[in-house]
Amino acid sequence: MRINLADKPIYLTEVGPRDGLQNEKEIIPTEVKVAFVNALSRTGVSEIEASSFVSPKKIPQLADSSEVFQKIERVPGIIYSALVPNAQGFERALEAKVNKIAVFTAASETFNQKNINATIAESIERFKPVVARAKQEKLPVRGYISTCFHCPYEGKIAPSAVIPIVQQLLALGVDEIVLSDTIGKAVPTEVRTLLDAVLKQLSQERVTLHFHDTYGTGIANVLAGWEYGISRFDASAGGLGGCPYAPGASGNVATEDVVYALQNSGAKLSVDLNQVIAASQRIAAHLQKPLPSRVYGVYRSKN
Amino acid sequence: MRINLADKPIYLTEVGPRDGLQNEKEIIPTEVKVAFVNALSRTGVSEIEASSFVSPKKIPQLADSSEVFQKIERVPGIIYSALVPNAQGFERALEAKVNKIAVFTAASETFNQKNINATIAESIERFKPVVARAKQEKLPVRGYISTCFHCPYEGKIAPSAVIPIVQQLLALGVDEIVLSDTIGKAVPTEVRTLLDAVLKQLSQERVTLHFHDTYGTGIANVLAGWEYGISRFDASAGGLGGCPYAPGASGNVATEDVVYALQNSGAKLSVDLNQVIAASQRIAAHLQKPLPSRVYGVYRSKN
Repeated sequence: MRINLADKPIYLTEVGPRDGLQNEKEIIPTEVKVAFVNALSRTGVSEIEASSFVSPKKIPQLADSSEVFQKIERVPGIIYSALVPNAQGFERALEAKVNKIAVFTAASETFNQKNINATIAESIERFKPVVARAKQEKLPVRGYISTCFHCPYEGKIAPSAVIPIVQQLLALGVDEIVLSDTIGKAVPTEVRTLLDAVLKQLSQERVTLHFHDTYGTGIANVLAGWEYGISRFDASAGGLGGCPYAPGASGNVATEDVVYALQNSGAKLSVDLNQVIAASQRIAAHLQKPLPSRVYGVYRSKN
Repeated sequence: MRINLADKPIYLTEVGPRDGLQNEKEIIPTEVKVAFVNALSRTGVSEIEASSFVSPKKIPQLADSSEVFQKIERVPGIIYSALVPNAQGFERALEAKVNKIAVFTAASETFNQKNINATIAESIERFKPVVARAKQEKLPVRGYISTCFHCPYEGKIAPSAVIPIVQQLLALGVDEIVLSDTIGKAVPTEVRTLLDAVLKQLSQERVTLHFHDTYGTGIANVLAGWEYGISRFDASAGGLGGCPYAPGASGNVATEDVVYALQNSGAKLSVDLNQVIAASQRIAAHLQKPLPSRVYGVYRSKN
């Protein structure tokens, strides 16, 4: 099995600038965000989710998304993507020349209601025209499904709740499905169980795994996914992010930790760990707080 | 496979009072250590490595080992063990009524030399009489092998370097072999490769895995070991410990994180997470520093 896996390139999507920063209370200057994205462009990741075109009222931190996209230095080959909630957001994203858009819903009705004030069906209805416009403009679309394993309100989420959402997103023409463990409670056995069901619906190449490291299982989940043939993972520099349902707890699985674990397991992943650490340092210096990444922590302790 | 695994009880050895505290610079009062061990006795772990009978000159922090053993309230069924380096230490341990002793060597010559100023052969020679005395006194013996995967000086350690040490320890009559990832650099593929070799030498029941979470792979390694049939793991409350080669980096794999991951994976492990957190809180209040455990971090953020 290992020989096969080692031949299959890994694609990392760096979500630090969006998922990592969106819950920061103090507004981060645009220049700092731009410098962060530029630093991430030097790491070797495939894709950077650079911002979000949601309503500035809802997420004031990302109100400067157009400006961020305008000011970043784009490195050829890297996909600069953004979250897009509706038709209006899509036109702004298009104007900002994003390379890919991301739409989002959830596998838990209660979570979706509390998160975006819509039923799952309503949220899908809402981004139907967005996906249609993206298709017209030949932009690829990723579809986030939040709370694929556990919901802070409903508890454990069964694969049978996830599959109909996957099917609906595929029917709309979404290119890539992002299975998200929003609150970071999943364990590898749950990852495998969900993948068993999901991989009957689409190929491994179209599945991305998005983990949070809230309960310490993030890296175990990434490796379990990789050993199951998945080659697309989301991660956040330094482990930025945090879970709104456990303030202060650790956030998205850290890019440094994902890179360390995958590269040392023999995965084909040409991301430069030192450049990731440099990007994390840059944002940590601005945020003035410790970052939860274990690998970043070792680096800091030695320097 | 899961059904089999779920039937097999897991045995946790809590190493916080010894491996977790030995590198703390400020001397911790004996009463605090005793209270910590007593709190750990309420968690449901099988064994507590309560201290070490090494020379007080070498590890001043654990100079009060006899007093700790004298003052703790022993809960029937729990094994209270201690590290023993030599014949003199053994007699002190015996007097202190330890239930089990631990001897130690390494798989890397350079590490052993720098750590205890002896070749591997010399260190084994040194604890031969200790194991013999333990056998006389009918005390079980665990044998730690440090740097089984990576050495801070020699780099990657091959299973072929570990196996002869395992064989020598078994020949002496050591009951349990503790494969230790001293600097926390291992990944699951390395754990499986070493286990493939080691399990030709002795049964799964006699192998303990001892991980550090320095690079974020600790929980992935525990789960990989469990899925390979191993049922004995070392862990430290709150993730106390730290790696002397990466000061400030995270330490032993945290008991909270191990319990969370194994219980949610369906393992048979009746440790009370809330009691572990209570024990961690107690020691954290004394040490006045954050503990690296992810699960403990969630608890703290909510309370």
